Amino acid sequence: MKKVINTIFLWASTLSSLLPITAYASGVVYDKALYQQVIKQTPQAVQLYKNLLSLPNDTHNQEDIKKLSSWLIHAFNQRGFESHTLDMSGSPLVYAERINPNAKKTVLVYLQADGQPVDPKAWQQPNPYQAVLKKQQNDGRWQVVPWSYLTQSMDPDLRIFARSAADSKGPIAQFLVALDLIQQQGPLNYNLKVIMDTEEEIGSPNLPAAIIRHKQKLKADMLLIFDGPPHYSNQPTVTLGARGIATVQLTTYGPYKPQHSGHYGNYAPNPALHLSQILGSMKSQDGRVLIPNFYEGSTISADLRELLSKVPDDEQQLKQKLGFSVHDKVGNTLQESIQFPSLNIRGLQSGWVEQQARTIVPDKAIAEIDIRLVKESNPQRLISLIRNHIESLGYYVIDRVPTHKERMAHPYIVTMKSKPVYGAFRSEPNSLAGKMAIQGLTKFYGERPIVLRSGGGSIPIAPIIDTLKIPAAIVPSVNADNNQHSPNENLRVGNFIEGIAIIASVLNQPL
Amino acid sequence: MKKVINTIFLWASTLSSLLPITAYASGVVYDKALYQQVIKQTPQAVQLYKNLLSLPNDTHNQEDIKKLSSWLIHAFNQRGFESHTLDMSGSPLVYAERINPNAKKTVLVYLQADGQPVDPKAWQQPNPYQAVLKKQQNDGRWQVVPWSYLTQSMDPDLRIFARSAADSKGPIAQFLVALDLIQQQGPLNYNLKVIMDTEEEIGSPNLPAAIIRHKQKLKADMLLIFDGPPHYSNQPTVTLGARGIATVQLTTYGPYKPQHSGHYGNYAPNPALHLSQILGSMKSQDGRVLIPNFYEGSTISADLRELLSKVPDDEQQLKQKLGFSVHDKVGNTLQESIQFPSLNIRGLQSGWVEQQARTIVPDKAIAEIDIRLVKESNPQRLISLIRNHIESLGYYVIDRVPTHKERMAHPYIVTMKSKPVYGAFRSEPNSLAGKMAIQGLTKFYGERPIVLRSGGGSIPIAPIIDTLKIPAAIVPSVNADNNQHSPNENLRVGNFIEGIAIIASVLNQPL
Repeated sequence: MKKVINTIFLWASTLSSLLPITAYASGVVYDKALYQQVIKQTPQAVQLYKNLLSLPNDTHNQEDIKKLSSWLIHAFNQRGFESHTLDMSGSPLVYAERINPNAKKTVLVYLQADGQPVDPKAWQQPNPYQAVLKKQQNDGRWQVVPWSYLTQSMDPDLRIFARSAADSKGPIAQFLVALDLIQQQGPLNYNLKVIMDTEEEIGSPNLPAAIIRHKQKLKADMLLIFDGPPHYSNQPTVTLGARGIATVQLTTYGPYKPQHSGHYGNYAPNPALHLSQILGSMKSQDGRVLIPNFYEGSTISADLRELLSKVPDDEQQLKQKLGFSVHDKVGNTLQESIQFPSLNIRGLQSGWVEQQARTIVPDKAIAEIDIRLVKESNPQRLISLIRNHIESLGYYVIDRVPTHKERMAHPYIVTMKSKPVYGAFRSEPNSLAGKMAIQGLTKFYGERPIVLRSGGGSIPIAPIIDTLKIPAAIVPSVNADNNQHSPNENLRVGNFIEGIAIIASVLNQPL
Repeated sequence: MKKVINTIFLWASTLSSLLPITAYASGVVYDKALYQQVIKQTPQAVQLYKNLLSLPNDTHNQEDIKKLSSWLIHAFNQRGFESHTLDMSGSPLVYAERINPNAKKTVLVYLQADGQPVDPKAWQQPNPYQAVLKKQQNDGRWQVVPWSYLTQSMDPDLRIFARSAADSKGPIAQFLVALDLIQQQGPLNYNLKVIMDTEEEIGSPNLPAAIIRHKQKLKADMLLIFDGPPHYSNQPTVTLGARGIATVQLTTYGPYKPQHSGHYGNYAPNPALHLSQILGSMKSQDGRVLIPNFYEGSTISADLRELLSKVPDDEQQLKQKLGFSVHDKVGNTLQESIQFPSLNIRGLQSGWVEQQARTIVPDKAIAEIDIRLVKESNPQRLISLIRNHIESLGYYVIDRVPTHKERMAHPYIVTMKSKPVYGAFRSEPNSLAGKMAIQGLTKFYGERPIVLRSGGGSIPIAPIIDTLKIPAAIVPSVNADNNQHSPNENLRVGNFIEGIAIIASVLNQPL
C-alpha cells in the first residue's frame, strides 16, 4: 500500500530502527484447526508466492505489468472466478468475480499488484525478483538459507526477501491460498469481487474514473483491503479509515532577480520574511492551527477517547526514538492527534543555505504544505480558510505568477496553488466491513485486534468508497518491519502463514 | 573590488539591463590640459594595459599570481618605487613605496591584482587574457574591431574586453599611467605607499593579520582605494564608506529523521513552523527590525538627509526594474536605507519543494541571515540582541547540534551560529582622504562628484582602516556596466582615459 508518494520508506526505516524484530505471528492462536490447515498448506503456498514474486512488476514497465496481469487472471480463473482486465486509461485494473446465484451480499476486495522499481545493486541478493530465504545471525545480519529450512522446522522468524514481498504480492499470495482453504468448506454464501490495482505506486491516477465507469459491475456491500503493515507493535490490526490529503503551495515575491543584500538590504522587500510571517501566523508554537474553524466538526468525545486509548502506543518510547520530548498539542495522544485535520509545512525554500549561501535578497520564497483531511474536512473549505487568512494579513492572493502590473500595484503578493488529492474515509466498527474484519481476526486469535479508527496517512481508496458508497476495512497481513519501497524488502515467514489464516478467517465470516 | 563573496554579478547583471550604455566620460571636462595630456598618452597607456591583461591572474593559481607580482614589482620599480612582496600567509601582498625625504604626509593606496577564474567557453573571444577591442553594432552586439581604431578616431564608446579589464587591472594600469603623467611635473610632496592585494577574490583572508604585522611599514595619513564602479548613473563618484557584514545561521529541529506527515502530522513538532515564527517575529511586514535597540546609534539628521538627497537615484525607475512598488521602511530612500544596519534572510530551507516535495514532517529547518553593519553597529551587540530575542520566544539557544538529552529536555531548540565578517568603515568628506578625492574630481570635472556617504555592500578594507586608524576614500575609475566577475568583462575606452585623469588629478592634490 502506498502511503502517498514515496515517503513511506522514511517511516519504514524508522520502524526498522524502532522495533525489536518481534511479531505477533507466534502460533498462539485460538482457531488451532485453521492454523494447522495453513501450516499443512505451507509448501504449496510458498511455491505459489515464489512464482508470483518472480514476475517483475515495476509499475513503469507496461510489458511486465501485462504478463503479471495474465498470471493473475489465470490464478483467479483456476479458482472459479471470471477474470479479465477492466477497460481504463493507463494500466488496466485486473478484475475477478465469483458470483453465487444464491448470494444476498457482495464483498469487494482491493489488492495491489504493481511494485516500486528495483535497484539491484542495493539488494543483498542477485535478483530482487528471485526470492531468497534468510535467517538472521547473532550479529544482526541476514544470511541466505536453503528453502528446505521451511519444511524441516518452521522457524517463524525466517524471512523471504524479494521486491514486493510485503508490498503487495504477499497479500495477493495469501489471499489466493486463503481462497483455496475456505473453498474446501464449500462455496461462500456471498459474491466475491476482486480488483487488483496495477498503478498504485504512481498514485492510482486513473482509478477514480475507472471506478465511476465500472460502477455497476463493482457494486458491492463492503470493501476489504488486504494491504499495509499492522500497528507498529506488530499486533493484529484492523484499520477502519485513512486521512485524506490536500496540498497547498505558497510563493512570495521579492525583486525579479536575487539582489545584492548590501545594495538592497533594508530596501528590497524580502520574500522569505513574508513567507515566514504567513506560515508562522497559521499555528501556535505548540502546533495548533490558529485559523478559526479549521478543526470544525472534529472533536474527541469521552467514548472516542476511551476507544482510542485502547491502541497500545508507547509514546514515551516513540518520542525517544523520534527525538523530541513534547508533541504538538492538537490531541492528547498520537491516536487523538490523527483524528484532526493537519496543516504541515513539508518544504520551505528561499535563496541558498550552508555552503551555497550567498549575500542576496532572494527573488522568491516557496512553501509546500500538506493538509491531512479527516472525514469532517471539506478540502475546499480548509483551502478557503487558509486563503482568507493570508488575505487578512494584507496579501493579494492569486493562483499564478503575478504580472508586472500586479507587482507595481500590490506591495504584498502570494501565489497560492492548491490541490485536493484524496478524500478521507472512515467506516464504523459495526459496519459490514468493520464487523467482518474484526470478527475474523477475533475468531482466529481469540481476542479483539487493535482497531484503528483511522490511519494518519492517505490512501487512494477513498474514491472507491465515495463512488460505491460502501464501508471499508483494511486488514494488514504482513509484518510492520518489512522494508517496503526499499531494497531488501521482506516478509516474515510467521506473518506469511498467519496472514493466510487471517484472510481465510475474515473471508469465512458468515454474511 | 569584491562586494562580498560572489554575488556582485547579480548586481552587475541587473545594472546591465537597467542602464543605457552611457558614461560620464564625455570629454566635457574642466581641466582640459590634463585631459589632453592623457589623450596624448593613450597609445602607451593601452599598450601597458594590454600587457597587464595578458597575465593570467586567477586568484587560485599561485604560479600565475607570482608572475603577476613580478610584473607589478618591475612596473613600480621603473617608476622610482622600492617594491617587494610583504611576508604573509597565502599569496603575499605586493608592496611599493616611494619616499620623499621632505614629505610631511603619507598616502596609502589599495589596488587589487587578482581576478575571478575564467570559463573561456562563455567568452565571445578566443582568450579572456588576450584583450580585444570591440564596437557595439546597431543590433546591440559587440564586434571586434582593429586596435588601430583607437588612434584613428577616439570613440569613447569602444570597449576593451578581457578578464579583469575593470576588476581590477583597469585601475592598476590607470594608476601607473597617472604616475607617469604627474611625474612630469616633478616629485610629489608626500610619500606614496601602495599595497596590491592578490587574494581579494577569495575575501582577503590573510590581509587583516598582514596589516597588523606590517603596521609600522604601512603607516600613513590616509587610504585611497582605486577600485569599484561609480554610482549606477555612471557619474563621477567618491564613496566614503561601506557597510560591514556579520552572518547568522539558525537551525530548528523536528524529529531526528523526516517523518511521514500522515503518521505524525499534528504530533511531531515542525521545525519549519518554528523557524518561520522566529524569523517572522524579527521584523515588521514592511521590513523594520522589531528587536529593541537594533538600530541604536543610527539616525538621519536633517543635515544628513539633505546630503543623501543629493545622490541622483531614480527610485521610481529602479523599482520598476527590480519589480516591486514599495520599499522596506527602514529609511525614506535607498540612500537613507543603507545608513542603517540590515537584517536580511538570505536563505531558507526545510524539506523539499516543487518537484521534490514529499509528504513529510521535516527533520530540521535552516535560515541564513546576513547583517549589514554600519559604523555604529557593534556586531557582537547585534548578534546578542538576536540571541536574546530568540530566547525570549521560549527557545533554548545553543551554538551546536543538540544532544539527545537536550532534545528530551527542551521542547524548542535553536542552533545559532554567528560570524562577524568585516567591520564597517566611514570617513568624513572633510577628512584628508575625503578632501583629496573630492577635490581631485572637482578640479578635473569643474563640479563636485556624487559623494556617497556609504556604499551598501561590504569590502575587506575596514581591517586596514581599523588597524592604521586613517580615513579612506574609494575613487572608482571604470564604467558601472562592466560585467565584472562575469564573462565578457570590459572597460569602456572613454572611462579608461578619464579614469587616468581622475587618478592623476586626485594624486596631484597638494597635501
